[in-house]
Amino acid sequence: MDIADRRKADPAHWRLASAIRALSMDAVEAANSGHPGMPMGMADVATVLFQKHLKFDAASPHWFDRDRFVLSAGHGSMLLYSVLYLTGYEQMTIDQIRNFRQWGAITAGHPEYGHAEGIETTTGPLGQGIATAVGMAIAEEAMRAQFGADLCNHKTWVIAGDGCLMEGISQEAIGLAGMQQLKNLIVLWDHNDITIDGRVSLSDKTDQLKRFEASGWRVLSCDGHDAADIDRALTDAASGKDDRPVMVACKTIIGFGAPNKQDSSGVHGSALGAKEIEAARAAIGWDARPFVIPEDILTDWRAIGAKGRATREAWNARVDAAPNRDEFARRISGEVNDKLAPVIAALKEQALDAKPKVATRKASEMVLEVVNPELPETMGGSADLTGSNNTRTKDLGTFSPENRTGRYINYGIREHGMAAAMNGIWLHGGFRPYGGTFMCFVDYARGAMRLSALMGLPVTYVMTHDSIGLGEDGPTHQPVEHLAICRATPNTLMLRPCDLIETAEAWEIALSSESTPSVLALSRQNLPLLRETAGGNLTAKGAYILREASAAPKVILMASGSEVEIAVAAREALEASGVPTRVVSVPTMELFREQDAAYRESVLPGDTVRVAIEAGIRQPWDWLLLGERGREERSGFIGMTGFGASAPAPTLYKEFGITPEATVAEARRLLG
Amino acid sequence: MDIADRRKADPAHWRLASAIRALSMDAVEAANSGHPGMPMGMADVATVLFQKHLKFDAASPHWFDRDRFVLSAGHGSMLLYSVLYLTGYEQMTIDQIRNFRQWGAITAGHPEYGHAEGIETTTGPLGQGIATAVGMAIAEEAMRAQFGADLCNHKTWVIAGDGCLMEGISQEAIGLAGMQQLKNLIVLWDHNDITIDGRVSLSDKTDQLKRFEASGWRVLSCDGHDAADIDRALTDAASGKDDRPVMVACKTIIGFGAPNKQDSSGVHGSALGAKEIEAARAAIGWDARPFVIPEDILTDWRAIGAKGRATREAWNARVDAAPNRDEFARRISGEVNDKLAPVIAALKEQALDAKPKVATRKASEMVLEVVNPELPETMGGSADLTGSNNTRTKDLGTFSPENRTGRYINYGIREHGMAAAMNGIWLHGGFRPYGGTFMCFVDYARGAMRLSALMGLPVTYVMTHDSIGLGEDGPTHQPVEHLAICRATPNTLMLRPCDLIETAEAWEIALSSESTPSVLALSRQNLPLLRETAGGNLTAKGAYILREASAAPKVILMASGSEVEIAVAAREALEASGVPTRVVSVPTMELFREQDAAYRESVLPGDTVRVAIEAGIRQPWDWLLLGERGREERSGFIGMTGFGASAPAPTLYKEFGITPEATVAEARRLLG
Repeated sequence: MDIADRRKADPAHWRLASAIRALSMDAVEAANSGHPGMPMGMADVATVLFQKHLKFDAASPHWFDRDRFVLSAGHGSMLLYSVLYLTGYEQMTIDQIRNFRQWGAITAGHPEYGHAEGIETTTGPLGQGIATAVGMAIAEEAMRAQFGADLCNHKTWVIAGDGCLMEGISQEAIGLAGMQQLKNLIVLWDHNDITIDGRVSLSDKTDQLKRFEASGWRVLSCDGHDAADIDRALTDAASGKDDRPVMVACKTIIGFGAPNKQDSSGVHGSALGAKEIEAARAAIGWDARPFVIPEDILTDWRAIGAKGRATREAWNARVDAAPNRDEFARRISGEVNDKLAPVIAALKEQALDAKPKVATRKASEMVLEVVNPELPETMGGSADLTGSNNTRTKDLGTFSPENRTGRYINYGIREHGMAAAMNGIWLHGGFRPYGGTFMCFVDYARGAMRLSALMGLPVTYVMTHDSIGLGEDGPTHQPVEHLAICRATPNTLMLRPCDLIETAEAWEIALSSESTPSVLALSRQNLPLLRETAGGNLTAKGAYILREASAAPKVILMASGSEVEIAVAAREALEASGVPTRVVSVPTMELFREQDAAYRESVLPGDTVRVAIEAGIRQPWDWLLLGERGREERSGFIGMTGFGASAPAPTLYKEFGITPEATVAEARRLLG
Repeated sequence: MDIADRRKADPAHWRLASAIRALSMDAVEAANSGHPGMPMGMADVATVLFQKHLKFDAASPHWFDRDRFVLSAGHGSMLLYSVLYLTGYEQMTIDQIRNFRQWGAITAGHPEYGHAEGIETTTGPLGQGIATAVGMAIAEEAMRAQFGADLCNHKTWVIAGDGCLMEGISQEAIGLAGMQQLKNLIVLWDHNDITIDGRVSLSDKTDQLKRFEASGWRVLSCDGHDAADIDRALTDAASGKDDRPVMVACKTIIGFGAPNKQDSSGVHGSALGAKEIEAARAAIGWDARPFVIPEDILTDWRAIGAKGRATREAWNARVDAAPNRDEFARRISGEVNDKLAPVIAALKEQALDAKPKVATRKASEMVLEVVNPELPETMGGSADLTGSNNTRTKDLGTFSPENRTGRYINYGIREHGMAAAMNGIWLHGGFRPYGGTFMCFVDYARGAMRLSALMGLPVTYVMTHDSIGLGEDGPTHQPVEHLAICRATPNTLMLRPCDLIETAEAWEIALSSESTPSVLALSRQNLPLLRETAGGNLTAKGAYILREASAAPKVILMASGSEVEIAVAAREALEASGVPTRVVSVPTMELFREQDAAYRESVLPGDTVRVAIEAGIRQPWDWLLLGERGREERSGFIGMTGFGASAPAPTLYKEFGITPEATVAEARRLLG
């Protein structure tokens, strides 16, 4: 059926879906950048989903028991923004839609978590959404098991495109979800057969239904432009008729409604242009001016946005009546558990007495053994290296279809999928996830680890075997550049403790974090207890004097993790030969950077020899090695200190201060 | 059937396979580290493969038309080393096997390309092998199409484990191979149902046969301990009866032959121990001392290693008689094409005249437009961003099942699979691959990019949209830390040209590289031609004076890529107000590091103000900003400057010089 036939076949539905199409093409046109094809192609599916299936209340975006909606094909962000505006999310005003992709707007090129309520996760790097949704669905099952279906019983809906399904991470997600029988997870595949380079068949001929089925999914299909057929499929998908997650192949035409450009890659990622917009308006029967939604249509959409209110109020009443409501509230708040500090303090005191010589991966396990029983919100796991990562403690059962109260996830050999699932678990709420693999496999997990940082999710990566200290497995498994990679990543805490006490402090920092992921780099090999005090959290200083020199230091040795032992030994030799030598432990550069200048000067005064020791590359150490006061005052850097933003490039250069003017000003400042 | 039954059923096969089992368990025992389970489990399959199917000649490991054998499950390295020794590869002596996983041995924990002939690619990070093999099979098809089946007609065999198939990259490989109908690619799946954490079902329930079928593979099964059944399946697989790649599920028992430990995760990654080795020797009927292969068995194995000789000699004769033998020899040599330099020189001269203001991604396309017609060995591609990466030139046809002479690959939305395939294309020989995606998706491709560097493969990554300069797509697509990531990676050339001339120079460097991968970071936005000379290759200096100060410089502005324009503008402002200012373009830090001290001093003298400008994080710039002579002489670093190695950890620390002694010596040196 062509556009006209569709329009005639179901006018009540058509007018609602047309509002998405109109807003999407107008916003992309105004920005002169963006992706109209996907929002126009999936407008019908999204309309039926929000109208008839998604449990939500636009007036209460944080309602815990809402269905989660993840737009894995994040380039179709205007689909999400349109629906958020139409259903009445307060923050998503028409002005925000008008300012799509502009500096300061919450309507970034790709949906950015934290920009606007209703954006459940950041998407754009393809496949992240579907893999993050798996974590959300895991958390939903686990919370339901712990608090009951009265308090937690909702679905996770995903819209994924061909790109999401071609990315390798999708297989990790599909495999994990299938094995875990996440029946409340429903993926709507935008089966439009178009990628940027042309037809999907140019690069892939996978039978996606068969592929999902092979990993234990139930699969359905529908005509993605027939509201009744969509409704039928979504009803079936949501029925929970068996224990499998569900994939619905929605056969669509990309850019549907743009009569001359639809069904081509030309409509994927470029504005339609005034002429084609005119043609599209005629074709879909849309008379309103750009960014104007006719009153009657907006009223109907707003009613959709409000239809969940009674359900939410009933849920509120159930929560109020629940005996465990306080713990439930604490859990979903994500607040730091006040039992953490005393547990850590006690462990450190014991360590000072017992002076155990253990690998920091083992030290990490010792921390978790005392923390996990006190913090029911931890959710551990490993990418099939449990015995090596030391991530599993005795009290954690295995999370599985048979045991939803288990708090340990066998993620399988899926580092990327694990990292994305951890993001999803945190985003869902109720749990504080941590997961382990070898440090070197930061490489495999990077795509999702970057999103942890960009979204500001305090998940914890337990990265063991953190250097050549792992030995015989060889260079493929020996991280060399990975400490630098994590330190280079904005909003990431790279913690590399040197002994049990620093490991306990590192975990305290990680589990107290509110908006920063932590990477714990842990040794395979045993390390002695080097700390001589247990009070305070010295690791939180980033760097501190571990061994003072016998007199004014002539040499400062700096090191992290397993190399601090080397620094301490070297100091003894230097001191023995009359060279006053200080050892500075540097468990985390990021936190040292945040200390005031006086503290930093007290730890690293000028005019000494400095030697840094770390079994990784030098790049991150240069500022500590070379940045003595005199030189810092003679050098400047014009660049980035955090992640970017969505706006035209010239605006970004200006806003982030990467300009000739800023350069000139910095040079002048340095010239004095 | 148990061990005794198998032994009785086919004694002639059993003794050959037992040699693999014995060597593997003995080597792992001697090293007290390693993975006996996989070599013992797949010994029967490997024996049949090498005995009856693999086309090779142990005396001529570099024979171009050999079948390629890729051990994707690289932890089972002793399987490969055993077979290389048994079949008579000269380098793989019994002493090397005895020194498995020791410093200086070629028998690293995981197979390392370049350590020994017969190791076709580095494996260990799971899934890399199967994805690299896809590239090999692509190159085989393409070389056959270009030079005929007389010169190129061989298969690529892969042994992959459950871990390989759980990693996301495997889906990218499977999808690409299925679409491309690589019928000479045969994957032997070690279907042992065990991972490190236990049964596969703990984390995955995927029906792998169905999954491969869904992506266009032919699938077969066999009893992996029945030589006749293995032979049947491999014969069928190699028959080329249709156009699909083939996957053979080999049902095996991990650690088969170790009677008390087989079929458990305990046998996966630990030495068996003396007692179990004794039991295994009894069970498999092996009386010889450790590392000794009975003469008759070794003789039979050596005959297997020599059986390909006549085939190879016939091939040699065909090559000698081929009219295109010189070009064929040139192509498979991998040598740098001497047509490159004049083409680049001419383009630079033209650029100097025309002064085009173009994005460096467009500049890159202009380079490729003149290079590709002259260099038939280039093989381009993109991960579905062809129009954005500007990677496709007019003369390149599309490589597809219908057109094997095409030199442009639509990799699909598979950055990781693309990078691994590029590694495989180079390793196979005949082509010099390049492939494009957005710079930010270094994150997705990292696992394979690291292997490019570790193996020393001169592939080229065309990474466009290299900063916030991409604009509206927002922070998910804006690289910030990725320049630092690439610069932190050993043996990686991170090239960020500022205009067309530098882009041409960068390509000249990349296409002249013999053992280092190149990453070209290219702008989305237009940039003016800044260079005022075209002679020489200034980019190869790493950093050079682009604009001299009007007098002795008081300020030095350093920048790379799109920010050099900013530096030049800032210089004009500073000069106009009487501040002598030099601009140093820094297209590649790695090459600047390699210049002698006199040159570096001439470019960056001390006692000036220095400001660096780059739309990324500061970390890589600290050494240029802060490392003035005085300070460099007062600071040292004890750490890594390249990748690690396989040996016990204490040995590695000693060999790489990360010791108290080295620290003390460095401190003393700096104290003077």
